[in-house]
Amino acid sequence: MDSILKQGTYHHSLRVRYGETDQMGRVHHANYLLYMEEARTGMMRALGASYARMEREGIGLPVRKTGLRYRAAAFYEEELVVETRIEGVRVASVTFAYRVVRPEADGEVTLIATGSTELACIAMPEGRLVHLPGEVRAVFEAALGAARR
Amino acid sequence: MDSILKQGTYHHSLRVRYGETDQMGRVHHANYLLYMEEARTGMMRALGASYARMEREGIGLPVRKTGLRYRAAAFYEEELVVETRIEGVRVASVTFAYRVVRPEADGEVTLIATGSTELACIAMPEGRLVHLPGEVRAVFEAALGAARR
Amino acid sequence: MDSILKQGTYHHSLRVRYGETDQMGRVHHANYLLYMEEARTGMMRALGASYARMEREGIGLPVRKTGLRYRAAAFYEEELVVETRIEGVRVASVTFAYRVVRPEADGEVTLIATGSTELACIAMPEGRLVHLPGEVRAVFEAALGAARR
Amino acid sequence: MDSILKQGTYHHSLRVRYGETDQMGRVHHANYLLYMEEARTGMMRALGASYARMEREGIGLPVRKTGLRYRAAAFYEEELVVETRIEGVRVASVTFAYRVVRPEADGEVTLIATGSTELACIAMPEGRLVHLPGEVRAVFEAALGAARR
Repeated sequence: MDSILKQGTYHHSLRVRYGETDQMGRVHHANYLLYMEEARTGMMRALGASYARMEREGIGLPVRKTGLRYRAAAFYEEELVVETRIEGVRVASVTFAYRVVRPEADGEVTLIATGSTELACIAMPEGRLVHLPGEVRAVFEAALGAARR
Repeated sequence: MDSILKQGTYHHSLRVRYGETDQMGRVHHANYLLYMEEARTGMMRALGASYARMEREGIGLPVRKTGLRYRAAAFYEEELVVETRIEGVRVASVTFAYRVVRPEADGEVTLIATGSTELACIAMPEGRLVHLPGEVRAVFEAALGAARR
Repeated sequence: MDSILKQGTYHHSLRVRYGETDQMGRVHHANYLLYMEEARTGMMRALGASYARMEREGIGLPVRKTGLRYRAAAFYEEELVVETRIEGVRVASVTFAYRVVRPEADGEVTLIATGSTELACIAMPEGRLVHLPGEVRAVFEAALGAARR
Repeated sequence: MDSILKQGTYHHSLRVRYGETDQMGRVHHANYLLYMEEARTGMMRALGASYARMEREGIGLPVRKTGLRYRAAAFYEEELVVETRIEGVRVASVTFAYRVVRPEADGEVTLIATGSTELACIAMPEGRLVHLPGEVRAVFEAALGAARR
């Protein structure tokens, strides 16, 4: 269950919980938003821009827009890897893109889902749109640059 | 999906969501805590002691203790009824008891689960234990009396 | 908490649960997928094409693609309405579109979120893509026609 | 995020997800059942009695009874450790006990919650009570013995 950041992509491992399956025997589709959130905030922590600290300083990043495509089913107890990278940075928002894959015994990976989330930057608790803090934006732009290289 | 309060017991109907099932094909056991919470706060609203309003006034009721027994499985799309009553009121805590039942076509009910939750009364956000507000305590005691009668 | 179907749009009411909020004090964004699922399967039941029955007959409709835009925050205990309509029917898939709104005291509604889900039709448990059952497809097309009129 | 089994106790680390908090700013109480489930099934896997494999062989272990006491609040992004041990083994059931703790910077731990779950052994899908498979029971009893030593 390691997590590593390389070339602007954050690789985050997690294991499917029993309670995340549904009666179709697969991971219920809503849980991928939680997997992506766990990966995204793990990436922010790895980049030195902890989301927990941002909130303590009065800045929130609620999800404004999301899109997901489900490519293959994932199952209980499987180890999945969420590959996360920054896709765009603007004055008051940031967009992350994700690939959820299952590493297979033969060294290949199966693509399970792809998605993206656009996050707005707000002052909490009132919710007014504000600029991303300068140092957070710099960190996001560096990761965006590393992903593009 | 009606909810009614009679003789100190609050009858709250809900329908099992697909995402609440697990791969065993039943309602996942953790969801009963959400059903009980929905019923409990619905009861408080019906009693005129809205939990949303309590929180806005700086008082929280986190769960301090819970116990559940699962008697029979419940399934997707079934309509369940959570019967809730107050079991005990103290200076800084209140205990609710629950029966989750499934009404059957023949007019009988199947017992699905029983449980209880003990809630502590705290000042928010710091979490210090405080007395239940007087009017809330009065309302709880009246419901307790009605349930015992 | 009534649900009604008129002119191809299904209006489904629900109340936000405490456990559906997050520490930002709003409904966590993943829960809208559960709200949309509850509304969609309610609509199918109202149309006489119960999803529970489809599964018992060996046909599943897993979500293949989804997109959501969050327009305004929703809060604990609020009553929301999910307006659902069918947006497209194909040989082996169907697309639903949603508007989540909050009715206000003045009779207006606040738009909370919009979204869509594309569902593939599969044979269970193996997951092979199959045609929508004829009667289900007919029901979907009638609802699609009613929504367009 | 390591997990180790020593002297009959399984130490499983996890990090609190954002979506697991509620508007009180803490981990919502229902999530502890998911943490305990993740720890319990991790322990079974470590013991060589994978729950995923049991289900594939037609045996399920639904939760029949649970109890939890919440001792202190846990917060977003904290790393928690769930200490799990087997408390009792019977012909057709097994009971696990849990301590959820938060390791602190000074090397101490804060006790967050304690709990237990009693699991019934059933034949799936019909749900009839059956004996624990011999090798599973032997593994549970060995772990129980190790915990008592």
